[in-house]
This record gives sequence, C-alpha cells and structure tokens, in this order.
Amino acid sequence: MPRGRNAVVLLSGGLDSYTAAAMARADGYRLFALTIEYGQRHAREVEAARKVAAALGVVQHIELAVDLARFGGSSLTTTAPVPKDRPLDAADIPSTYVPARNTVFLALALAWAETLQAADIFLGVNVLDYSGYPDCRPEFIEAFERLAALATARGVGGGAFRVHAPLLKMTKAEIIRAGVALGLDYSLTHSCYDPDPAGRPCHRCDSCRIRAAGFAHAGIEDPLLRR
Amino acid sequence: MPRGRNAVVLLSGGLDSYTAAAMARADGYRLFALTIEYGQRHAREVEAARKVAAALGVVQHIELAVDLARFGGSSLTTTAPVPKDRPLDAADIPSTYVPARNTVFLALALAWAETLQAADIFLGVNVLDYSGYPDCRPEFIEAFERLAALATARGVGGGAFRVHAPLLKMTKAEIIRAGVALGLDYSLTHSCYDPDPAGRPCHRCDSCRIRAAGFAHAGIEDPLLRR
Repeated sequence: MPRGRNAVVLLSGGLDSYTAAAMARADGYRLFALTIEYGQRHAREVEAARKVAAALGVVQHIELAVDLARFGGSSLTTTAPVPKDRPLDAADIPSTYVPARNTVFLALALAWAETLQAADIFLGVNVLDYSGYPDCRPEFIEAFERLAALATARGVGGGAFRVHAPLLKMTKAEIIRAGVALGLDYSLTHSCYDPDPAGRPCHRCDSCRIRAAGFAHAGIEDPLLRR
Repeated sequence: MPRGRNAVVLLSGGLDSYTAAAMARADGYRLFALTIEYGQRHAREVEAARKVAAALGVVQHIELAVDLARFGGSSLTTTAPVPKDRPLDAADIPSTYVPARNTVFLALALAWAETLQAADIFLGVNVLDYSGYPDCRPEFIEAFERLAALATARGVGGGAFRVHAPLLKMTKAEIIRAGVALGLDYSLTHSCYDPDPAGRPCHRCDSCRIRAAGFAHAGIEDPLLRR
C-alpha cells in the first residue's frame, strides 16, 4: 500500500499532469510537485502549475529553471511559429517537439526522488491523444525505469524506481471524465501552446484542439471557456 | 570517418572531461561543449571549464544553470562537509555523490545533440579510479544509449546516439599520460571538491587524492602544484 509514501509528480500546468497527480494523491501518495521552466514561450503554463499544486495540496512544489531554449530546436522555445490547424492524425513529429524534453524532466524528477527516498515518479504522458512525440511512448518509459535502476545509489542497493504514467492508454475524453470524477477544477489548467498576451488560448494549436475534442467527446463543457 | 561531424562534449573543468574532449577533437569531431552549473560549491570548476573550452577551440560553449542544490542530497551542493582522507577503496557511495547527476547531464547533452543533428556525445567518466558513483559504470552508459534511441525524433527515424566514454577503463595515470601526449595543459583544470576561497585545492578530498595518485603513478608533475 502506497499510503504515506512520497512520490515526485511532474506538473506542467496542463490538464494531463494535474489528473495524473490527482490519481497519485487518490492512491495515497504524498506529492512532491516538480515544474520545469524550460524556456517555453507560454509562461502562463507555470502560473497554472502553481495553482494546480496548491489545489492538490502538495507537500512541496519546486519550480526549477532549465533553459532548454539555449539549445533551440523547437517552436515552443524559439520564435518559430507554432503550427495551427494541423491535421491531428498527421504522422510527422511537429515543430512543437522539444528535443529530449521528457528525458530531461524525468532525469530531474529522478534526482529529487532519490533525495526524498521516493521510489515513485508520476508523469502525465499519453500515447493516444498526443502529438506524435517519441518520448510519450510506453517503451520510452520502460527504458527510463531500466536506466534509473542503474543510475542511482538506490539502484545499486537493489531498489528500483517506478515511472507511473496512469494516463498512458486513456483517451483525452477518458482522462477528463476521470478528473471530473476526482473533483478536479480544470479551469485552473492551461493547455495552449501559443496564448495571446492576456494568456487566452488560441484555439488553433494542436494542444487547444486536442483539449476541445476531449471535452466534446466527454460531453463536458471546458470550464476555461466559461471564464 | 567522423571528421567534421558535430559532437556534444560534457565539460566539467576537471582533468577527465578535458582529456575526453581532446580525444574527440583528435578523432576529427567539431566540439560543442556543455558545462552544467548545477549548484556545486566550487564555482572554480566552471571557470576552469571556460579555460578548457577555449584551449580546445570548441565551436560553441554553453554554460547552463540547473540548480540541483534545490533537491539537496549531496555534500557537493549543500553545506554538509566534504569527506576528507577517506579510504579510496571504500565500498560505500560517498556523500559527494549527486543523485542522478550524470543522468541529468546526459539528458541535457542529448537535447542539444538532437538540435545540432549530432549523433555523438562524449563523457569523461571512468570506472577504475572513481569514487564508487553508480552513474559512471558501462551498464549505465549502455542503458542511456538505449533510452536515447527511444526518446528522440532521430531515434524514431531509425537513427541512434552514441555515448562515448573513452576513459571508461583507463587508470588515472593512463588518462594523464594520454592527455600529455595530446599536448594538454592540465594547469587549466580544477579537480578539488572543496577548494579554499582563493580556489586552491584542499589535497584531502577524494578528487584531490585520486588526481595526486594519478600524476604520481604517471611519473609526471601536476602543473597545478607549480603555480
């Protein structure tokens, strides 16, 4: 039984990581939330993460700056345009892909988890309603768990780390229904890749459109649209 | 033939990463040096990395702040004392171990490598004369290569990343002899975990003592001691 055990939860301020963290809480974990400020254009995301962390009642919330924009390579961290109205079933990897982002995020979560003597990391990745990012796939998660066991003092001592991705095989509509059943307030979250200066979503990037389709399929109104 | 191919080299300012980078250069790679300011107490290390990068003639040098001290857990990033005069053949992992440090470093190197379309990363880890850190072992390096192929757009496209650790099975004396043969100036480097305010080495931490033993076995005078 995990009741009272510590877990590191990666919290982006989006709907998925909020739901994954709430599932960890429902399972009895004490939450240590980690938000990476990686140079994303939408600082609105970090504000949302702060609200979500407070709503979840986490034990501690660390916002860590890691400026991946220094490396370039993504329309999320540079001035390259964010793609709009892109077919969501396109097979290519879009320019919003941030090279090795989830590898960096999980490595940092692992560093904190080992310090906390926590064996559990929660990540809100999802393999169905996603943008084709390679580091959202089950085989990536499994490879990271293997690495974590070899990378750490805990691993040398025979311990392991588990990367929980409870949303991995859920549709966006299923995620939203599960979150609503857990009493989550999705008006706190932010999904848009390219908000206007006031922080309002563009409704045309992949992330806005996947979110809208998810709420529509769930038959639930997105509380962000009521504001 | 790698001549003219880009490689990301992790450069700490120490003797090992300088030597590993010089070996990459001798193999014809164009060097992109990455130094992580991870909250280590000895900022002297970052200054040394800057000098080493200049001496190597790297194409670009990024110094990236990633404050691992926020997580605590190591005497290198907190005010806990650095162990002195510790038996170098002790089986335990010393308090200078920084949880998941090499995982974080390699993840960041991977992020940059993918942006540069570089398939090669150089790391100065060493399995013989080291302090018992788990993330300096060959099985860790191999697990990271497997992860990198799954984590990236390059991997999805059938490409791979290679993590080169040319010093992995060399003794410190062998490393020093190889570096001297390559014409390296080790007076630019810094090894001590706990320098005095003027940046002078303590001569009693693991890192100082491993360095001193290496120069002694190589029959070469450490140029740092002449200054």
